Amino acid sequence: MHRPVTIDSERLWHRLERLATFTDPDRPWTRRAFTDRYLEARAWLRREMEQAGLTTRLDDAANLIGTLPGSQPDLAPIAVGSHIDTVVGGGRYDGTLGVLAGLEAVQSLREAGITLTHSVEVIDFLSEEPSDYGVSCIGSRAMTGALSSAMLDFREPGGETLRDAIRRMGGIPEALGTTLRRSGDLSAFIELHIEQGRVLEQQDVPIGVVSDIVGIRRYDIVINGQADHAGTTPMALRRDALAEAASLIQRIQHDAETQAKGDDYLVATVGRLEVSPNAANAIPDTVTMVLEIRSDNAALLEGFFTPIAEHAMARATQRGLSIDCTPLSEGLPTHCAPRIQAHIQQAANHLGLQTLSMPSGAGHDAVYMADITPTGMLFVPCRDGRSHCPEEDMTPRQAADGCQVIAETLRRLDLERYRD
Amino acid sequence: MHRPVTIDSERLWHRLERLATFTDPDRPWTRRAFTDRYLEARAWLRREMEQAGLTTRLDDAANLIGTLPGSQPDLAPIAVGSHIDTVVGGGRYDGTLGVLAGLEAVQSLREAGITLTHSVEVIDFLSEEPSDYGVSCIGSRAMTGALSSAMLDFREPGGETLRDAIRRMGGIPEALGTTLRRSGDLSAFIELHIEQGRVLEQQDVPIGVVSDIVGIRRYDIVINGQADHAGTTPMALRRDALAEAASLIQRIQHDAETQAKGDDYLVATVGRLEVSPNAANAIPDTVTMVLEIRSDNAALLEGFFTPIAEHAMARATQRGLSIDCTPLSEGLPTHCAPRIQAHIQQAANHLGLQTLSMPSGAGHDAVYMADITPTGMLFVPCRDGRSHCPEEDMTPRQAADGCQVIAETLRRLDLERYRD
Repeated sequence: MHRPVTIDSERLWHRLERLATFTDPDRPWTRRAFTDRYLEARAWLRREMEQAGLTTRLDDAANLIGTLPGSQPDLAPIAVGSHIDTVVGGGRYDGTLGVLAGLEAVQSLREAGITLTHSVEVIDFLSEEPSDYGVSCIGSRAMTGALSSAMLDFREPGGETLRDAIRRMGGIPEALGTTLRRSGDLSAFIELHIEQGRVLEQQDVPIGVVSDIVGIRRYDIVINGQADHAGTTPMALRRDALAEAASLIQRIQHDAETQAKGDDYLVATVGRLEVSPNAANAIPDTVTMVLEIRSDNAALLEGFFTPIAEHAMARATQRGLSIDCTPLSEGLPTHCAPRIQAHIQQAANHLGLQTLSMPSGAGHDAVYMADITPTGMLFVPCRDGRSHCPEEDMTPRQAADGCQVIAETLRRLDLERYRD
Repeated sequence: MHRPVTIDSERLWHRLERLATFTDPDRPWTRRAFTDRYLEARAWLRREMEQAGLTTRLDDAANLIGTLPGSQPDLAPIAVGSHIDTVVGGGRYDGTLGVLAGLEAVQSLREAGITLTHSVEVIDFLSEEPSDYGVSCIGSRAMTGALSSAMLDFREPGGETLRDAIRRMGGIPEALGTTLRRSGDLSAFIELHIEQGRVLEQQDVPIGVVSDIVGIRRYDIVINGQADHAGTTPMALRRDALAEAASLIQRIQHDAETQAKGDDYLVATVGRLEVSPNAANAIPDTVTMVLEIRSDNAALLEGFFTPIAEHAMARATQRGLSIDCTPLSEGLPTHCAPRIQAHIQQAANHLGLQTLSMPSGAGHDAVYMADITPTGMLFVPCRDGRSHCPEEDMTPRQAADGCQVIAETLRRLDLERYRD
């Protein structure tokens, strides 16, 4: 087996720090897609790509793509990437690591004199984070045909359409009626990301090999009771929406904890809840809340809430209340290609790095790329699982480990296809 | 026994309707204390009192007092009253019924040629509802020495002190350093009020005889967990403040429902709750809520939450969260004078009206009056228990029943004292 190429971990870290400086100064680390600051950061990234020997272009969806040509230009390229936009008050590594580690891996291979047979594309997808236009993963959706023309008509609060915003970013929205990349146009896609959770850190494992990206179900739940005076209404005459909500949340928590002990990944969260009239001396008449369920098992995702909802509705009716549940959004789990999972795992082990097979609880551009090409993801730990916040943190070593595995995986993907 | 005097139920109802017209036109029924509209309503009320043959005055706390002189002016007067201010968007009968029924009872006695030995005072207490100055029951507190000089320094959001506001209403705040009325200055106080609950309506009983006015304990409860990504944090690694809050609310509800089956009145309510960061995809790190406990039993009021809090804190610690509980306010139960309860009950029965002995779950001016004189309260039903809202409603018959009992009770109080 070949000797691994050593990536330049200092250069990688320096670029991560440099890219972080493109931030709204009063609320680090904020680099929202579609802003001038985002364009400045992309201009810098494009120069870095070009100085590293990549040719660059914007595709019609305004995805920034740097390409290192392979020795056999007729082979479908291998792609690696992520995104450089952030949420408001976000972190320095979410997304940026996947882009810059891709660049560093490709540059290190080139500097080591290793030419792959496949071209490799390093992709910075446009606007992965939830955007002001009401849609996320805009670049990867557009590339894979999952951005509808209805979505292009979405407007941000200021009134600009997503269509116009994409044009402003250098894309050609008129061209997005057709899929930019079809099945077979790429040989593979891999994305490196911080875990955004605490599993790797707690188990002290440097590399997570993503088995599946969870599907998501959200329900809008409204509990209707009656707002009575909290002093004058005896317990037996109450229709307290919050007491009923508490019972429902307890049941969701209990069932999710029980379910989570099994083989499948499942998490269920009530993260958003509002009480009306929300006064100390008034029995709540209405509670609205959002339940989010994520699982790598489609049947579980579908079936988890049904018995809980039925039980809660029956209980509520008995107590003179009512519960309405409206499904908000659905997305099925995405399975990472077993072949690519195996490559990532073997690459890590070849580098002496332990791995853990795990689901991704968060959504990524990889979800859309999996529709058109065999796709894999790998995670590295981040401090205390924090992400989407200024405290998001990781060590240079953790970043370098991930990048090293990307470089090694690219070589293995390249060799495998060559042997086909 | 004497024949009951028949009060003029049409006049009573007409006055209730007329007083309701003094409202902010865009948000009926709003007549906040300390506003010009409130002053206009009081001017109207003062004229009504005078036309009914009462002499009127404002005391140093700006309580409006109408007096019908008795045949023995040296006897301490009997007082009857309530308040005419409302909450924002309040109702037409809360408070106003007690004042206008007092006026109607006194006027009917006078028109029937019946002169009591005691003078009777009809009191419209200043600002019973929670005021913009952060204190309620201002008039009854000031009358009984329970309005501290610190409270007089409280300011409403616009910056005016309560001291200046009382002066603006016609009071003399400098005189409030001493108690306006001392023990023995009044022979008795009675207050008629809508129930603000559904007990009388559900049991189809026209008159509630209040046994005790509940004491209130409020606790500010803060549950601290950790805000993790709702997708990437397995159930076992979570410190979900809302799940913990749900468990605590469930326990409060369960224990209160169990306790309420006993002889003592107890209600416990979490009416106010806020979640942070309150996003569908974030595990809540903080829940703040207010628990309110009301009971007519001081030991129960004191002891109810302790075992629940201890259990919740232990559970939270075990799960990596913490719970802080801060007592917000305390007020012990007020016991209505048994002698006056008996008079009210016998007066009602004499009129052919059924009674129910019941606690008051809401606070009233009577709480403060009970410090200086034997005090009683009676309730009449209100529609569906609603109050403090535009839908607050009652029938002319229900109002008349209460007024009739007031008139009859005044005569009985007068006779009893005369016999002493």
